[in-house]
Amino acid sequence: MSDLLEVLKWRYATKKMEPTKAVPQEKVDRILEAVRLTASSSGLQPYEVFVVTNPELREQIKPHAWNQGQVTDCSHLLVFAAWDNYTAERINQMFDLVNEERGIKNEGWEAYRQQLLNTYPQRDAETNYAHAARQAYIGVGTALIAAAQEQVDSVPMEGFDPAKVDEILKLRERGLRSVVMLPLGYRAGDGDWLVNLKKVRRPREQFITELK
Amino acid sequence: MSDLLEVLKWRYATKKMEPTKAVPQEKVDRILEAVRLTASSSGLQPYEVFVVTNPELREQIKPHAWNQGQVTDCSHLLVFAAWDNYTAERINQMFDLVNEERGIKNEGWEAYRQQLLNTYPQRDAETNYAHAARQAYIGVGTALIAAAQEQVDSVPMEGFDPAKVDEILKLRERGLRSVVMLPLGYRAGDGDWLVNLKKVRRPREQFITELK
Repeated sequence: MSDLLEVLKWRYATKKMEPTKAVPQEKVDRILEAVRLTASSSGLQPYEVFVVTNPELREQIKPHAWNQGQVTDCSHLLVFAAWDNYTAERINQMFDLVNEERGIKNEGWEAYRQQLLNTYPQRDAETNYAHAARQAYIGVGTALIAAAQEQVDSVPMEGFDPAKVDEILKLRERGLRSVVMLPLGYRAGDGDWLVNLKKVRRPREQFITELK
Repeated sequence: MSDLLEVLKWRYATKKMEPTKAVPQEKVDRILEAVRLTASSSGLQPYEVFVVTNPELREQIKPHAWNQGQVTDCSHLLVFAAWDNYTAERINQMFDLVNEERGIKNEGWEAYRQQLLNTYPQRDAETNYAHAARQAYIGVGTALIAAAQEQVDSVPMEGFDPAKVDEILKLRERGLRSVVMLPLGYRAGDGDWLVNLKKVRRPREQFITELK
């Protein structure tokens, strides 16, 4: 990988993508693998990623996403969809998988499972969903970097009607709710008003505070 | 940077850190710079990062974080603190900075400012805080990678009492609320029960769905 800071400077919220250029599947696969590998609270990975290449589905989503062109101009539309709730079944499934893969049972790990089982399923679904949705943003932060490393453009997109996207992708039936979308594609160059404008961030002293 | 997937495989939620080994400042600086450069909704960067090296402050935080040793054994405790609300002042400050840095005024950009001004400050503070907190998780996802790239260990930590941490770091007076902590340091090797256990993730087919 090139220098991480250079990669982060290269990327930008791509406003116009080249509809004729598709991201090669092996690049998409590496981006998805990075998301799969990254961290999440208690390792539960409480979200899933949908890779929408189907043109009809993307046409259906577009009007519910302020008609943003990247929804259909990108080659792969990633939709991050968080668990609508933490259930005992979901928690047990992950802890069981961990035991199976590690081939051991660990007392501390089992105590931790019980702690989650005694806490999460009792909370209201909205609180649990909000927590799961936050984890999806770790995935988004990861995908942004993974894409840029592959010289693939992307743009995190919150401006859409989640209820409609849930309906179009049939997410609720799977116990999921759409959180954020990330079109992957290639910048249309001068067709994009943002491409040549300077990336602006608050200066370090307004963003970082050292308490020594 | 080494291969991103290798970097992600190398990192793990470090359970025990070596208290005698400090992360060099230039590595911390590059990790923080990566967070500063990454994306956030509308580019508002609605959070700040506190770098707590002060030992007394960390001792005060520890009992409110389930006495997790990394809080004091790490060399740099990052605390991600989100805006408690979106105000017109905060929104204007960022849009003004962008105009100043770019040296231009853009009509579309100004219309977008108005759209945010007409929406965000009118929403309740809790909704705005929840949205800001999500953005902080993009920062966490970025910091995890940036740290691992520097061969620095880290562990995202949600298990703490945010009200207490806010009080100890005087965050509320600054319009901020603690969201997640990220100790930076070095793994204590065999002293860490997790270090030699396999990283487990759901298989791709349970995490990724392709809609073609």
